[in-house]
Amino acid sequence: MGRDEVQSSRMLGAEERDRLCVVLVATRNPLNMGAAARAMSNFGFHHLRVVRPYDVAFREARSAVDAGEVLAHAEEFPNIAEAVGDRTLVVGTTAVGGRKLQRPLFDLPSGAPLIQRELCRPAPATGRVALLFGPEKTGLSNADLDHCHWLLRVPTRAEHRSLNLGQAVAICLYELARTGPVRAATLAQSVEQGPIATVAAQERTLKLLLEVALASDHRHMRSAQGTEEMLRGLIQRSHLLEKDAATWAGILRRVLWKLQHKK
Amino acid sequence: MGRDEVQSSRMLGAEERDRLCVVLVATRNPLNMGAAARAMSNFGFHHLRVVRPYDVAFREARSAVDAGEVLAHAEEFPNIAEAVGDRTLVVGTTAVGGRKLQRPLFDLPSGAPLIQRELCRPAPATGRVALLFGPEKTGLSNADLDHCHWLLRVPTRAEHRSLNLGQAVAICLYELARTGPVRAATLAQSVEQGPIATVAAQERTLKLLLEVALASDHRHMRSAQGTEEMLRGLIQRSHLLEKDAATWAGILRRVLWKLQHKK
Repeated sequence: MGRDEVQSSRMLGAEERDRLCVVLVATRNPLNMGAAARAMSNFGFHHLRVVRPYDVAFREARSAVDAGEVLAHAEEFPNIAEAVGDRTLVVGTTAVGGRKLQRPLFDLPSGAPLIQRELCRPAPATGRVALLFGPEKTGLSNADLDHCHWLLRVPTRAEHRSLNLGQAVAICLYELARTGPVRAATLAQSVEQGPIATVAAQERTLKLLLEVALASDHRHMRSAQGTEEMLRGLIQRSHLLEKDAATWAGILRRVLWKLQHKK
Repeated sequence: MGRDEVQSSRMLGAEERDRLCVVLVATRNPLNMGAAARAMSNFGFHHLRVVRPYDVAFREARSAVDAGEVLAHAEEFPNIAEAVGDRTLVVGTTAVGGRKLQRPLFDLPSGAPLIQRELCRPAPATGRVALLFGPEKTGLSNADLDHCHWLLRVPTRAEHRSLNLGQAVAICLYELARTGPVRAATLAQSVEQGPIATVAAQERTLKLLLEVALASDHRHMRSAQGTEEMLRGLIQRSHLLEKDAATWAGILRRVLWKLQHKK
């Protein structure tokens, strides 16, 4: 009948998919961990990181018959900061409860192209993305979300927002894998002039800036925590290059030394 | 802070979604049946039909604590012909093995708009669609596929095509529920959360930063002009928002005052 040809859509390249890692935070159910790993394998994302997994879940998931390569190579981290330290962009998934969010929130169809753009940037500005999924019952906490540059949610019916973890991972990766490289035109704009600062480098800059802010005026600053939140947003929005982070660190260290050694 | 607005995508209308039914054929695992029903509820598709379910699976899934409305109202049929008898379009999902298919095959991103078109046709030409999912181990058989007008598959890595049933249902319904993808170009702009700082505001920030850099260490800095060029690049690349420029100015002014008033 000659009718069996596939109307095929492109997928994101293997090299680009290799620049994304899925981070499962405090997952309880081994079946969900297995389902997440399976979906990763289906869509060609191979890097799984787990943060504070429920021990039994991690062991059981790993020993499951069809666990496969993704789970076998999963890396374990004690906290989110260490799990995302080598990334250039950290995106957290959330169903959004009644909480007031301190980060921009995108529906998956709108957010996916932004992640793809980060993954597709040519070297040396190559991006590395972490996509975070929270525990089954509660999702990512506000403290967890503080590690994220922005947030992503799968659009659902307002009356039933909470997705099963394995299904949420599968939907996000389907969307990220499928649309294919973003148009050259948009890419051209995003070609930066050097490697992007890692999250760890951003955090070092933030820490120095915070010390300088506190050392320069205790009285007029808001609470230390409020200041940290504000400055973290400031640093995240500035999309520092590696060399910019180094420049800031140099200036801030000198300023701090001067402030601390004045009589 | 005004940063919590959602970049939202539209969903297919409730009336249109009501014209689609999901048909699970010979499902074995109650967890998969429950997962399929949950995803239906998430994305607002309420009509579940089951054909020759493994009896225990259907009973267990229905009695699960969080089974919900979709499973409670699921209809049981002895065969596919009866399950799809009142439909205008029947679409079968398949991972496509080595089989020679006798029906056109579409990847989900290409096939979903065809289903949506059928669901959205105005009365009296109103369409009603059945979307079929086969048993876990084998998928839909060739005899099952004979009931279908055409076939749909979720694009995956060629080396790992077989999706978990619950995840396959979730991905298909996610794609069907949402309407057209939004353009990446408009999105890139919407990442920002407020007015961009004017060039004048950027220059004010730069000037303060330069004063701080020079005041904090004369000896180790390069020439004043080299420093200014470097810092101007730094400020330009950070694409400051108006509020960010104000924050920087506040911090830098305090630092400068401290540096200048030390004895």
